[in-house]
Amino acid sequence: MLHFENDYNKGAHPALLQALVETNDEGLSGYGTDVYTESAIEKIRQACDCPQAQITFLTGGTQTNQVVINSMLASYEGVVAAEAGHISVHEAGAIEFSGHKVLTLPHENGKISAADVRQLLVDFYADGNREHMVFPGMVYISHPTEYGTLYSKSELEELSALCREYKIPLFLDGARLGYGLAAKDTDVDLPTIAKLVDVFYIGGTKMGALMGEAIVFMQNNEPKHFTPIVKQHGALLAKGRLNGVQFDRFFTENLYFELGQHAVDLAEELKVILEEKGFEFYLKSPTNQQFVIVENEQLTELTEKGIVYGFWEKYDDSRTVICFATSWSTTREELEELKNRL
Amino acid sequence: MLHFENDYNKGAHPALLQALVETNDEGLSGYGTDVYTESAIEKIRQACDCPQAQITFLTGGTQTNQVVINSMLASYEGVVAAEAGHISVHEAGAIEFSGHKVLTLPHENGKISAADVRQLLVDFYADGNREHMVFPGMVYISHPTEYGTLYSKSELEELSALCREYKIPLFLDGARLGYGLAAKDTDVDLPTIAKLVDVFYIGGTKMGALMGEAIVFMQNNEPKHFTPIVKQHGALLAKGRLNGVQFDRFFTENLYFELGQHAVDLAEELKVILEEKGFEFYLKSPTNQQFVIVENEQLTELTEKGIVYGFWEKYDDSRTVICFATSWSTTREELEELKNRL
Amino acid sequence: MLHFENDYNKGAHPALLQALVETNDEGLSGYGTDVYTESAIEKIRQACDCPQAQITFLTGGTQTNQVVINSMLASYEGVVAAEAGHISVHEAGAIEFSGHKVLTLPHENGKISAADVRQLLVDFYADGNREHMVFPGMVYISHPTEYGTLYSKSELEELSALCREYKIPLFLDGARLGYGLAAKDTDVDLPTIAKLVDVFYIGGTKMGALMGEAIVFMQNNEPKHFTPIVKQHGALLAKGRLNGVQFDRFFTENLYFELGQHAVDLAEELKVILEEKGFEFYLKSPTNQQFVIVENEQLTELTEKGIVYGFWEKYDDSRTVICFATSWSTTREELEELKNRL
Amino acid sequence: MLHFENDYNKGAHPALLQALVETNDEGLSGYGTDVYTESAIEKIRQACDCPQAQITFLTGGTQTNQVVINSMLASYEGVVAAEAGHISVHEAGAIEFSGHKVLTLPHENGKISAADVRQLLVDFYADGNREHMVFPGMVYISHPTEYGTLYSKSELEELSALCREYKIPLFLDGARLGYGLAAKDTDVDLPTIAKLVDVFYIGGTKMGALMGEAIVFMQNNEPKHFTPIVKQHGALLAKGRLNGVQFDRFFTENLYFELGQHAVDLAEELKVILEEKGFEFYLKSPTNQQFVIVENEQLTELTEKGIVYGFWEKYDDSRTVICFATSWSTTREELEELKNRL
Repeated sequence: MLHFENDYNKGAHPALLQALVETNDEGLSGYGTDVYTESAIEKIRQACDCPQAQITFLTGGTQTNQVVINSMLASYEGVVAAEAGHISVHEAGAIEFSGHKVLTLPHENGKISAADVRQLLVDFYADGNREHMVFPGMVYISHPTEYGTLYSKSELEELSALCREYKIPLFLDGARLGYGLAAKDTDVDLPTIAKLVDVFYIGGTKMGALMGEAIVFMQNNEPKHFTPIVKQHGALLAKGRLNGVQFDRFFTENLYFELGQHAVDLAEELKVILEEKGFEFYLKSPTNQQFVIVENEQLTELTEKGIVYGFWEKYDDSRTVICFATSWSTTREELEELKNRL
Repeated sequence: MLHFENDYNKGAHPALLQALVETNDEGLSGYGTDVYTESAIEKIRQACDCPQAQITFLTGGTQTNQVVINSMLASYEGVVAAEAGHISVHEAGAIEFSGHKVLTLPHENGKISAADVRQLLVDFYADGNREHMVFPGMVYISHPTEYGTLYSKSELEELSALCREYKIPLFLDGARLGYGLAAKDTDVDLPTIAKLVDVFYIGGTKMGALMGEAIVFMQNNEPKHFTPIVKQHGALLAKGRLNGVQFDRFFTENLYFELGQHAVDLAEELKVILEEKGFEFYLKSPTNQQFVIVENEQLTELTEKGIVYGFWEKYDDSRTVICFATSWSTTREELEELKNRL
Repeated sequence: MLHFENDYNKGAHPALLQALVETNDEGLSGYGTDVYTESAIEKIRQACDCPQAQITFLTGGTQTNQVVINSMLASYEGVVAAEAGHISVHEAGAIEFSGHKVLTLPHENGKISAADVRQLLVDFYADGNREHMVFPGMVYISHPTEYGTLYSKSELEELSALCREYKIPLFLDGARLGYGLAAKDTDVDLPTIAKLVDVFYIGGTKMGALMGEAIVFMQNNEPKHFTPIVKQHGALLAKGRLNGVQFDRFFTENLYFELGQHAVDLAEELKVILEEKGFEFYLKSPTNQQFVIVENEQLTELTEKGIVYGFWEKYDDSRTVICFATSWSTTREELEELKNRL
Repeated sequence: MLHFENDYNKGAHPALLQALVETNDEGLSGYGTDVYTESAIEKIRQACDCPQAQITFLTGGTQTNQVVINSMLASYEGVVAAEAGHISVHEAGAIEFSGHKVLTLPHENGKISAADVRQLLVDFYADGNREHMVFPGMVYISHPTEYGTLYSKSELEELSALCREYKIPLFLDGARLGYGLAAKDTDVDLPTIAKLVDVFYIGGTKMGALMGEAIVFMQNNEPKHFTPIVKQHGALLAKGRLNGVQFDRFFTENLYFELGQHAVDLAEELKVILEEKGFEFYLKSPTNQQFVIVENEQLTELTEKGIVYGFWEKYDDSRTVICFATSWSTTREELEELKNRL
């Protein structure tokens, strides 16, 4: 089977696995207080060019979004997000489950605009009934978005300035951050993000870790007593070393960035292949996910050819949008084989 | 000052106040276990033509919506509602605060269509990712809606049939139910509602009570141990008699229905007056609230004339939608005076 | 029937009812923004000798406890209370329902000691695992307690000093505050409470209001955006005037204090009667509730005599603790009649 | 450093790591729908002698307790547990955070008795105010307990019969289950537990997995739509294979049981060593944790000797209870070395 359905169908990058094996016999203190976690934090601070960043490692993306949003919002506040945002649609209501409304905005290929956010804020504060409404208390964006698209530096600057004007945090969900940082024409690097947002997370699960996401608070704004907060969400890992060791390795010799680059390079080739094969694009993204529209019959053909694709959504009664994703684990051989089979 | 801003700016209807005065010295058991509550329940059952309805009295509308929705939904379920629904916009996120997403649909003057609800349900159950999404677990409608509009009997039948097909409850918010029941051309009476919905509430606060809303469960579907559930929401009134006495009086000699009729009759006259005075209607409703579009300057004029109107929303930069509401307490003299001053 | 079972089995004090009747026809703005609420706030500030107190009116005791505790605690904090505290036992878990643990301490007739609270705090901060535990974030006391007992001024001073040392608020539940203030030998008046606690509430329901409790924040510590917080708890009354008018009257011509005095004076007589009749006291309280131990057979006798008592708890297999309560509404005639029937 | 502080200071058992390495390159579907998870489920069913058990893998213990308890209780119910229970004390209030009270009972070395549970249930159902109280909706026990002690088969039978009489589930926290099953004189094996409890979990983290706990529902009582429930708690692992592969290996060739046996055998030797060295026992447990009382000065000595012990609690002003734990990873050499250094 050729796996192009997503970026988390394999285990972990061999270098991370090896780091786990090598450190396996060491007796370490638990709950993220070990030396590897410490080292990982230091390396991420350097990569962010921000020596005072506060960093905590959690296990998965929904968990991370829930803990960040729930711990930073006041009870009467909600989070502004794209209608297509992961927290809006695909987290089983985890944000509402923890008490907060997701205030949705229209999006363009997953992205929201500063203009739309501003309008929402202006309208809210002009509304005489606002004390009966949910306060917009945070702006959530994903980068890359669920559609693989990216914000430009100037777009981030606009959002950042707006959030600072309104004194609400800007939160960037970087579940696939490494793929975003490696895109060909992006002008957004890690220090830029670190400077413009108030909190973000560096995704591990989809970038080659067994699991793990690194929350980075940029403004000395980590909620007080964050450990018990994480614990009460059921999110405190006993063997915190797992995250520490893996992220320490990610940020050694640029591995994290190289894995992103690898996947994006192959995605560029994938786009060419899909074009050559005559696929109609739904969206050509600058990152690792590519979306095409196929006749429903083609779905069966793909499966028969042993190609695993990602279902995205119904396009119309006879056609479906599907996704082909490269990842840290995709090989040139797999891509070649995909080309042959298509 | 002429009060036409809403239907809750006066105290209570004199008959209700008198009933409170008359029963004031009786020693009664608390928490809704008194004889007046019992009598009120019996009378509402009769008015609903449903001897087995389960009825509980709470204090306010948001509280009632929160308790009903939170107690009937599973944790993984959300409630389907109009984008303009009270629970979606004007309850400070009380539904999300208690853990549930409001799944919004477009509306026409406050109403949602069975077709749209069906599409949402069909799409949800067709979605391969639905286990990562919020399950639609209830349909919420208001009748009258926030815009004063009404569902027809056939619209309710459609929604009811759909909900029963999908085995999810249909919940009708009747904060202004009395005004809806009295509308000129409505074919929806109380027994019809009682037959078609699974749970609804009969609004008291806006119909002439000091406060109080009557939740009616129609399908022997009152959540088990509803009293501690109400209590843990902070919604159990020690002197439950307040609700009991008032609703007992509401449903004696048709008072509840007469108060609705009174307000709707005056609202018909109000529409004529507003027309005569050349107001541009935003929406002419069949119930007690009428919406007109005025130049922003006119707002000051109205205030100077001692007319209190309800702010609805900005229409455009120079105009505003405002609301004139009649109520159980509006007098023909007040209406006449309004006519003179406009 | 002679009602001595509790202090909320009658409606409202006639003066409060009358004030409601008199103001009934006035058109007032909703949600606690009316002139009577404003006036009530001003009078309570004066009674507390604290011009800057922040005051909000809610409907019931459990609701008030839930809103105060939930809005003042961080998510990782719990509230310290007596094992017998109302929030610990008799609020259907409303505090836990809103996310917080009640950290219980042993009590003496309902009271907790500063020494015990200090020990809990010292132990907590000495515990190496405290980041895995619930932080003590507030101290809750009731005054009078559930047993009718009272804290002395020096006891309150000790608790106050301790809480300020640890920078956690001291919250006093005054559901029956008026009875406490009127006790014969108490050295605790309203300004003393206002000075020593960080937040408290002045009970209305049990003191002669139809319903209503006044939350008083003393340290400019009302949670930001308290109105939407109240709203999202389902606790914002549309006709806030009900609370405003009643509390305005309570604090006019010392009515609130007189009602307390009346009940306590009668309770002193009640103690004498109970003694004369040979009852074994479980607890003689300085306020309006008196607890006696009776043989289980006596319970039926009392009922047969038309005396309604309050069940307190099983004492042993053959005996029960019951409560006789006077209130704002108890008359000397009723007391005389009780004496005759006992 | 000699690590005897707990059973989770090393990584994973080599066989589990190897299984992860061997399966690393396989493309697998996510969220626990892979073949290894399927296989692990099958093997656990066999080990439990229960072909229809419903099994789900989560990441950590607090998370597991929170998800199980929150998903099985009605909102008005709490969970009965020992005062010393992990959920009562050391989960940062995760149970209350999700809305439920922990109803505590006194314990003997971590164990609660059926007699005490029965008394609590009898008292609750005899209490006239029970609709204002938290309903006991589940019984939680840990086996081994936090003190390393074990329930006997007859004790479990009693608890089981009682819970079935009252129709509330019995939940067994098996964070260290493997050590309990291996104890010398226990008459409780896995099928016995599976038969007597309604739900339990088989701990992985403390038994040699990188992380992972297996929830086992025994009575076809897995909450409906458990996947979105898990997801909304932030507990659904994208690469569910991690749990699947590890538990599949645990239950291949009895590894799980052997690891338990290994630790318990060494713990028996440890007890002898501690005795020989003259330590005063606080509690000699039949499982892998042993508790001794030491002078506070000895703590420094131990550290200087490179011995890492677990802090348990203050005993008195001059003495401390500490814990020595063996585990799946402890070697006889380490034990020998401990003996030398003590």
